[in-house]
Amino acid sequence: MQNAEMQECIRECTECHQTCLSTIPHCLHKGGAHSDPDHIRLMIDCAQICQTSADFMLRGSSLHTETCRACAEICERCAQDCDRIADDDMMRTCAQACHRCAESCRHMATVHA
Amino acid sequence: MQNAEMQECIRECTECHQTCLSTIPHCLHKGGAHSDPDHIRLMIDCAQICQTSADFMLRGSSLHTETCRACAEICERCAQDCDRIADDDMMRTCAQACHRCAESCRHMATVHA
Amino acid sequence: MQNAEMQECIRECTECHQTCLSTIPHCLHKGGAHSDPDHIRLMIDCAQICQTSADFMLRGSSLHTETCRACAEICERCAQDCDRIADDDMMRTCAQACHRCAESCRHMATVHA
Amino acid sequence: MQNAEMQECIRECTECHQTCLSTIPHCLHKGGAHSDPDHIRLMIDCAQICQTSADFMLRGSSLHTETCRACAEICERCAQDCDRIADDDMMRTCAQACHRCAESCRHMATVHA
Repeated sequence: MQNAEMQECIRECTECHQTCLSTIPHCLHKGGAHSDPDHIRLMIDCAQICQTSADFMLRGSSLHTETCRACAEICERCAQDCDRIADDDMMRTCAQACHRCAESCRHMATVHA
Repeated sequence: MQNAEMQECIRECTECHQTCLSTIPHCLHKGGAHSDPDHIRLMIDCAQICQTSADFMLRGSSLHTETCRACAEICERCAQDCDRIADDDMMRTCAQACHRCAESCRHMATVHA
Repeated sequence: MQNAEMQECIRECTECHQTCLSTIPHCLHKGGAHSDPDHIRLMIDCAQICQTSADFMLRGSSLHTETCRACAEICERCAQDCDRIADDDMMRTCAQACHRCAESCRHMATVHA
Repeated sequence: MQNAEMQECIRECTECHQTCLSTIPHCLHKGGAHSDPDHIRLMIDCAQICQTSADFMLRGSSLHTETCRACAEICERCAQDCDRIADDDMMRTCAQACHRCAESCRHMATVHA
């Protein structure tokens, strides 16, 4: 069983995973900076590490500190990249999901280390 | 963007994925029929296809019918296996999550095919 | 333990997963038809179902027939989409990996069903 | 495109992912220390971070340093846990795959950071 803090982090990781995945087609349709190869790759990277990090916590693994640390860093990069091109609601929503997930994972990586 | 029906199926797949993953340690701790290799494998199988199925819908892929069809079958098997040993609240919750996900995915695979 | 036939299918799924993932940045860099949202999504779909299908076989799951059936269909679609724009070696290599994986998975889904 | 060093690390991660996944049923069948909940969870953790780490490199992501760092730590723990109960060929093979992957990922995380 996960405590309330970990449940919150699982929620943020799941939300960030889902938001990134569903925002990728939007980016590809808009084109330009939104479909820049580095941006799309970062969105895919972010979606995957969020899932991995959530899964470690769902299994109750003590090694979630390792995946949360990586997740915090990758989400922060993705948040900044989304902020840079956040000219519509979907991109702003995605940037916010990444920022929240980064913060939550950073906290989990620190207090449990 | 996903319509309401697809959003509901994404929720069921996510819920089933999370419930299976967090129930596996419980099964391993209980031992006996709960930690039977075939049961644990089925729980891992179910968690993975639920994630895959959810991700196809999150990306708005028309091929979600293929993953939902597989997911419906695998969740149904997992639900039956959980029902068989559902002697506590966690196993019953897991069985119910699998049943609901199976039904939702079967619907998605049929109406969109 | 997997028999020789299943080991071959695991190899094809792994190869197809890796080829699709590493070809996506190439497609995004080329632009035009290569970075069409539907094509990129299909490449991501294909990479994910190949991994899922390989993992079911690695675990020795009898339900690999379900994931192999879905994988065969999705790889076939991806192969056709790659064939359509196969104007360089990377796209041709990707199309071939998808065709081989589709064939191998179709066989596994049929003979073991 | 990945350089030779990265290709080697992708190979080690893939090998470790596959070995852990296919060794889990073996552990569950043997029972005792092999099916200890913490050991099985560690094997599942290791399989997942190896896949994630391999995928970052396959996409050519510069953030592979983050996932390789996490992967090195998790593989090392899994290797030690496998060594502890390595009373047959499958467990020894698994321990070796984990050790090799840990070393390769540690190198990637360090030289590219």
